[in-house]
Amino acid sequence: MDGRLLVGADVGGTNVKYVVMTPDGALVRQGDIRTDPMDADATLGQLAVVIREGLRAPQQTIGTIGLACAGIVDPVTGWLGRSPNLPGWENRNLAETMQRACGPLRVVAANDVNAALYGEYRFGAGRGCRHLVMIALGTGVGGGVIVDGRLLTGHGHGAGEIGHMPLALAGPHCACGNIGCLEAYCGSYGLVRRARELATAPDGTAALRDLAAAQGESLTTRCLFDLAVGGDVAVRRLFTEAGQRLGQAVSSLINVLAPERVIIGGGVGQAGDLLLDPCREMIARHVMSPPGRATPLVLAELGPHAAAMGAAALAAASGEAP
Amino acid sequence: MDGRLLVGADVGGTNVKYVVMTPDGALVRQGDIRTDPMDADATLGQLAVVIREGLRAPQQTIGTIGLACAGIVDPVTGWLGRSPNLPGWENRNLAETMQRACGPLRVVAANDVNAALYGEYRFGAGRGCRHLVMIALGTGVGGGVIVDGRLLTGHGHGAGEIGHMPLALAGPHCACGNIGCLEAYCGSYGLVRRARELATAPDGTAALRDLAAAQGESLTTRCLFDLAVGGDVAVRRLFTEAGQRLGQAVSSLINVLAPERVIIGGGVGQAGDLLLDPCREMIARHVMSPPGRATPLVLAELGPHAAAMGAAALAAASGEAP
Repeated sequence: MDGRLLVGADVGGTNVKYVVMTPDGALVRQGDIRTDPMDADATLGQLAVVIREGLRAPQQTIGTIGLACAGIVDPVTGWLGRSPNLPGWENRNLAETMQRACGPLRVVAANDVNAALYGEYRFGAGRGCRHLVMIALGTGVGGGVIVDGRLLTGHGHGAGEIGHMPLALAGPHCACGNIGCLEAYCGSYGLVRRARELATAPDGTAALRDLAAAQGESLTTRCLFDLAVGGDVAVRRLFTEAGQRLGQAVSSLINVLAPERVIIGGGVGQAGDLLLDPCREMIARHVMSPPGRATPLVLAELGPHAAAMGAAALAAASGEAP
Repeated sequence: MDGRLLVGADVGGTNVKYVVMTPDGALVRQGDIRTDPMDADATLGQLAVVIREGLRAPQQTIGTIGLACAGIVDPVTGWLGRSPNLPGWENRNLAETMQRACGPLRVVAANDVNAALYGEYRFGAGRGCRHLVMIALGTGVGGGVIVDGRLLTGHGHGAGEIGHMPLALAGPHCACGNIGCLEAYCGSYGLVRRARELATAPDGTAALRDLAAAQGESLTTRCLFDLAVGGDVAVRRLFTEAGQRLGQAVSSLINVLAPERVIIGGGVGQAGDLLLDPCREMIARHVMSPPGRATPLVLAELGPHAAAMGAAALAAASGEAP
């Protein structure tokens, strides 16, 4: 490994978070630029300029660039398939687009949750483990799996749709059109929607009704969390159920994959023990093997730059022997 | 690869099935001996004698020996941990025990469902695939996963407990002590138990009541299957529900792992479309990605010697570069 710097960027629908870091994960710079969801060339061209301008000292050169992106990404070729939040970026080679903007560097692309998991594996909550599962609880619910130190991408790079594990044959509607998905219970979109329904239901509380009326479309899981911490029984029940369903999914994943740890990321994960305690109870009950029942459930550590850091590390590792 | 023969054996609680085969999977001999569930040395000693006696031509020599065994097996060291059907075999090194009986050959041990999956991957229903899931529907329900051509064993070799994926928070009791496990819906023990309950329930049929009374403790899934094929609505409903729950589990596995095929093995799998049609309907509904929805669901091809063949192939492959 030479001393050159690694660049990683996480392309979201709104902005691109980027990091410049040393090979051992020490951040030299970080920042973000706006994403043009219709124009990959313009966005990545601007990213190349920003990164170049940031390199003032002559001994600072870039070794490799990693790009993380929501959607189906082929990490071997750099091809981005379906990516709902980046309609103008779909069905193109991200690695080649970046190379046009930045010159002949090695560019490697990866799915954003896979990149975040790889970041946690190398520098965060999964350090030292060979087998990991990560669940990212955001608006939707994403997931990733590391088996024996390698990202599991599966046939056609379609693996990791943990958010759409069906947990019940009759359950809440999911944004994907199905019912009973993990995401419908634990994603913020699903949680907020269920809180709104609960606000006007007989088992809702006056406080939840007032909150939902006051916030309208601005109701967030953060508001719900605050209400739950204040003791609201209806919202606490909602988080308990979400935690139980998370636990049902995690129990299946531990039974099937036997990870050393399960990492919970994303904003909803910040609900902490309100969500994780019922999840742990399910794991203790539904995991088959005694060692599996003790699998640690941990929060992600790297924060919003996890995917950019992981993409940077993936790109650097992609040229090495496995 | 030299021209020596491969030996594989599948140690069950009742008997040991063994094969002698060429490296490309052509069977030279197959047979079985009784298992002494309390005495691994005696059983494997007898196996070594039987195999040696079967090699009449002087040019026939054994290259490697693979041992498949129910329970937690460490394929690197050959250690057998928990193995409920072989109480006298637990917590010992199977590979070393076999070497004492047969001399200094390379002996590799593997979990029996993993070995059966590896057999199907090399010689049967999974030929040509890099990513596979197998579900073995027997008395209980076992499972295995191949990722990029390698068996996924996970941390502590605890992976593959597909039968204990929790599918419902309130569901039928499982032999493991939990409720709502895949095995409780789809293992023959669970299916027969539920058929007995249904026989005396208001929505049972006279034919099922008569069958359950006539068979008593001898009631099998085969009898139930025959009744269902004859049109019995109660038993058909039972198989439909089992197929739906199988489909719920398979949908989760496809969403998470993106295998190229899902292989269904074991006796209950012989119910065929009665079980697989409702399973396929669930896959079409609950798998997120369009290519994933088209994942073929296929029956195992190798029959009762799958695990012995797979163990033989695993032992031969274990000395090769990955």
